[in-house]
This record gives sequence, structure tokens and C-alpha cells, in this order.
Amino acid sequence: MSKPETIHWEGGADGTLYLIDQTLLPVEYRQLDYSKGCVEKVWEAIHSLRVRGAPAIGIAAAYGVCIGIQTVLDEMDEEKFFARFDEVTAYLASSRPTAVNLFWALDRMKEIAAAVKKLMDATQTFHPLEVANRLLMEARAIHEEDREICRAIGKHGAELLPDGAGVLTHCNAGGLATADYGTALATFFWAAEHGKKLHIYADETRPLLQGARLTAWELQQHGIPVTLICDNMAAQVMREGKIQAVVVGADRITANGDTANKIGTYSVACLAHLHGIPFYVAAPKSTFDLTLSTGDQIPIEQRSAREVTHGFGKQTAPEDVDVYNPAFDVTPAKYIAGIITENGVISPVTEENIRAMLED
Amino acid sequence: MSKPETIHWEGGADGTLYLIDQTLLPVEYRQLDYSKGCVEKVWEAIHSLRVRGAPAIGIAAAYGVCIGIQTVLDEMDEEKFFARFDEVTAYLASSRPTAVNLFWALDRMKEIAAAVKKLMDATQTFHPLEVANRLLMEARAIHEEDREICRAIGKHGAELLPDGAGVLTHCNAGGLATADYGTALATFFWAAEHGKKLHIYADETRPLLQGARLTAWELQQHGIPVTLICDNMAAQVMREGKIQAVVVGADRITANGDTANKIGTYSVACLAHLHGIPFYVAAPKSTFDLTLSTGDQIPIEQRSAREVTHGFGKQTAPEDVDVYNPAFDVTPAKYIAGIITENGVISPVTEENIRAMLED
Repeated sequence: MSKPETIHWEGGADGTLYLIDQTLLPVEYRQLDYSKGCVEKVWEAIHSLRVRGAPAIGIAAAYGVCIGIQTVLDEMDEEKFFARFDEVTAYLASSRPTAVNLFWALDRMKEIAAAVKKLMDATQTFHPLEVANRLLMEARAIHEEDREICRAIGKHGAELLPDGAGVLTHCNAGGLATADYGTALATFFWAAEHGKKLHIYADETRPLLQGARLTAWELQQHGIPVTLICDNMAAQVMREGKIQAVVVGADRITANGDTANKIGTYSVACLAHLHGIPFYVAAPKSTFDLTLSTGDQIPIEQRSAREVTHGFGKQTAPEDVDVYNPAFDVTPAKYIAGIITENGVISPVTEENIRAMLED
Repeated sequence: MSKPETIHWEGGADGTLYLIDQTLLPVEYRQLDYSKGCVEKVWEAIHSLRVRGAPAIGIAAAYGVCIGIQTVLDEMDEEKFFARFDEVTAYLASSRPTAVNLFWALDRMKEIAAAVKKLMDATQTFHPLEVANRLLMEARAIHEEDREICRAIGKHGAELLPDGAGVLTHCNAGGLATADYGTALATFFWAAEHGKKLHIYADETRPLLQGARLTAWELQQHGIPVTLICDNMAAQVMREGKIQAVVVGADRITANGDTANKIGTYSVACLAHLHGIPFYVAAPKSTFDLTLSTGDQIPIEQRSAREVTHGFGKQTAPEDVDVYNPAFDVTPAKYIAGIITENGVISPVTEENIRAMLED
């Protein structure tokens, strides 16, 4: 099988959108296809997490708009055309109401639509296919921009990883959450494509097992050697000298470099620190939230107990047991050797260096 | 429900053995009963891990002998009686051929049988019920000795735990593996019984989830507040100030204090060290192996990949993925604040202090 593409568009404005159904991974690889105006199915794919990860959701939604307006490609009534466009964007916005990237991508599509409409109104012309083509261009641009960001992160990060290194990662900061290449995993993909030999150790990442289900699968697909471990084995593989670096993704990074990421990341950072192993965070500039000065200001979301007690389709803990299930934790900047962005690596991690890199 | 007794004998030589079926926990609590000579069922219980943990296996096997000879309580032919005894002990020895405590307990039963036989031969008398009673006494003694060891560990350990403390434990060093009280968990039981308020955090302990399935259940049964966490959350609860001490069990302790225990124990020790939290090991003197000078001499057993990839009846990792699954790890003595034995607490953990305590 060729390397999987999380999201793929084939053809022109009347073309087809392809998505990997991530809910079936790692047991089954299935590409879903969307065409002929079936925006309801794209909505369902976003809603049911068949496509997941902030960048990937944004890209899928942008292409979803293109699918939705396929029903009006011959519609010569401008008002009816844009009524459908408005209907489609409003509908897609309801698929995952908490996903910031979803709205960001739909807003970009709306701006393009408004600009094209304004231009056509000024010349008193209306060509539905021309509007559709312009919208597809924008969706492709959103897709391509993300691809370039991931490539740049991959390139900068790969330089930090010694040839022959064992590298530990946690959760899934891979291509499945982005255009096709990811953030932490981008560094491994880039290194491998440029002849470096790495061996990746993937934490399975309880409770939802993204490391086991997605990271191990992605690395296998790319032909990169990967060994799956339980989260509680990370210290042991470090002690055995198997790990020369750690690379993880990030959900949010504050002005001082404190990094919120999937629960368990802080544990890995502590263990890397104690074993003298450099710990890197790979994240696009859009991950930084400079309105927060330190990680203490990030509230920690608690998730359902059932994720822990019934995680594997089977009850594995006593009825009504109390569970603490934070969605993520915060790794203090002092344990982070460098933050890998599309502009370059921030190291040492200080507010001054962060601001300098972001303004670059 | 009253506090569960892992193993319980009711009546005289013709009595009944009760075991908790641990394979059904934590979803179902069921006591199995064995009587009327059905040693095959006791064999099956040991073989199928319905009873598990070194001390508990030894106790169950000793009582198993008493069950096995119930078929010859009226047998006045001495030769036939002891032929059955030999048959039963040999048979039980095959239930878990790697369990050292199994052989140790059966040897004690054989020694008693031989001594009684010798005495009876000298006086040219033979009373089958008297032999059976003497064997039951020995099984009860093995049981009682383990109970006393656990009580003593509980008492010494409880003194180390401040009233109101949050305490983290890993895996299951509880009553289910011993007579009724455990080692690490004995310290919590003793503290609770003597009025100390503790809040226990139980690592679920991947891959086999003994913490979720057994530790959380046992603590619930004893009415001790317990919160279940995934292994990768231990660092976070420490960082939040919820943990004032860590207590774990041990599989093997070398002369310098290095401690082999369930995989993930070393990770917890590292995290406790980094957060300035005392880390204690609770283990009977029989756990020490003074023939090994350091933990480096302990070979680390690798277990099946399927425990990680197909943990609970469901595939959670890609087909054929490489897995590293060590059964246990070794925590260096330098990270251990004290080792709690039935004789008292070894602290600081040095070879000199270990030898002094063991010879006590």
C-alpha cells in the first residue's frame, strides 16, 4: 500500500473528496469518498471523528463546502446559488461546534465567496462554476498551507535527531490529524525520506490508545521501524539506553513555553529529564497562545470515567469506582529542550526566543 | 458485603475450602467451594489463575492436599492412604510448575506427612483422620503465618503514612495475592483499621490492569477511598500535590536493595524522586534474594505482544506491530526511601541495613 493520504481531492469543482475512516484504524484501512453534493456525509464524517485533529477538520470542512455546492454548479440564479452556499457552511459549522479550525476554515471560504460575489456583482455577471472553482482553489490552498507547515516542521525537527537514534513519541501528532504529515511524526517522516535511520518507540497512550491505534499504524505505513510500548514502560526503555530523543506534539503553548498536550506527556518529560534525554515539542506557530503567560492559566479538562473503566469494549474496573481522567497535562518549559516550529527551532525555550521566532 | 477473604477453610478434615474466583473480578464476586476430595477442581483453580499471587498459591495448594485426601479419611490401609497423599501432592505440583511457593508449601505438607507416618510406624498404629487433622493444622499454620507477616508489614508501613495522606500504589500487592491482607495494601488496611484517613490512587497497571481490576476492587471492599488513574497520569497527580507517599510491592529484592516489581514501578519511582515524594517497597523477608548483589543480575522476562495489542478481547494496535512487553522492571535502591518488612522498616536502603534486618 502507498503512504496513506488523510485527505485527498480528485478532479475539478465536480470532483471527489477522499477521507481515511480513522474510526476503523488500525484494524481496517478504508478510504471513504464523497461527491455529487452529499455534504451530509461529510458532516457525518467530521461529527463521528472519521476525520479528526484540528488541521484535518479544517481542511475537510473546506472541501466539504465544495462538495455541498456541487448541487448548484448549473444554477444560474445567483441568489439561489449563494443561498445553497450559506446553507452548506452553516450546516458544516454544526458538525463539531468546539473545533476552532472548523470555523477558521469555513470563514476563509466565506470570505472568498463574498469577494467573488462582490466582483461579479460589480460586473453584473454570474458564473456558478467560476465561483465553485475559486472556492476549490481556496480549499486546496488551506490544504497546501498545512502541508507546507508540516514539511517545514519535519525538516527543522529532523536535524535534531541523530542518525540511528531511538526516539520516543506519545499520542498521535501524525499525518492523520493534519494534511498528511503531522508535527512530531513529520520529523520522523522527513528524517526517513532523507536517509536517516530512526527507530521509534510509540507510547500506546491510555485511555484512548491513539499511540497504539494511529501512531504505530502511520509509522508502519511509512515503513519506519516502530515498537509499541505501554505508557508505563517508557522509563524502562530509557534506562536501557534505547532512547536518544523524545518528540511530541502540542495542544497549546503559552508565552513562557509551558506546553499543554495529551495526558502523559508531562510524565514522559519528567522521565526524559531524569535520564538526560532531550525532550522536543513539535507544533505550528498557530499552537502558541501568547495571551497566557504560563501553563498554570490553562484549565485542565476532565473526561468521562468510562474511557478508563470500559476502554476496551469490556469492563476492566469495579462498578462506580472513582476515576481521575484529565484530558491533558502541562509540561513546564524547563523540561523542553526545544520547540520545533515551521520557522525553526526555539531553543532554549524562553519567552524572548518564542516571541522572536513567532514574529519571524 | 463483608471484607472478602481470598482463601478460607471451614470445618475439620472433611471441611470445605473457599476461594474467590479472581478471574471474574471486578465485574463479578463469586466464592468457589471445594470439598469431598475434588482436588481436580483445586488444581484447575491454581492452573487457571482463579487464585494467584505467590503466598496465596502456596496456601491454596496446602489446603488442596487436605481436599485431595478426603477420599481416604476412612482408609485403614496405611499404604493406600499415603499412596493417595503422594498422588495428590504430585498432581497439585503440576498445576503451576514455575510457582516457587507452590513447591514450598507442598514440601511442608510432605514433611508433616512423613513425620506423622514415622511416629505411627514406630507405635504400629494408623489413624487416617489423625494424619488428615495434622495436615490440616499445617495448612492452617501456613495460612496463619502469612496472615501474621502481612499484619506486621501493615503495622510497620502504616506508621510511615501521614494521616490524611494521598498515597499512590501500582499493580496489586493486596490481599488477593496473599492470605487476606497483602503487602503494600496491608499498610493501607492497617492504617484504616487504626483510624488513619488515607486516599489511595491506584495505577491501572497496563497491560494486565491488576490495579484497575484488583486493587481498586479490594480497596472498595474495605471502604477505603480510592481513585483509579491510568499509569501515565501518576506524574500529573503528583504535580497537583495529591500524593504524599508511594507504596508498592516487590517480586524480588537483591542484596543492595534494588527491587524488581511489576513493569511501571521504576517509572513511578523516578516520578516520586523528581517530585520529592517518599517511595516505599512493602515485602516479606522471603522476597529478598541475597545471592544477587544488584538488580543488574536480574534477567527481565519478556511477555507476549498480544497482552498489549489485544488486551481485552479487542484489537487495539495494527497487525504484526513490534511490541516490547517486559514483565517487570528494576527500581534502584537509591530511589527507595524504605523497605517495609514484617520485622520493621529498612531505611536507608543499604546492604548493611538489609542484612541486619533479615538476620533480626
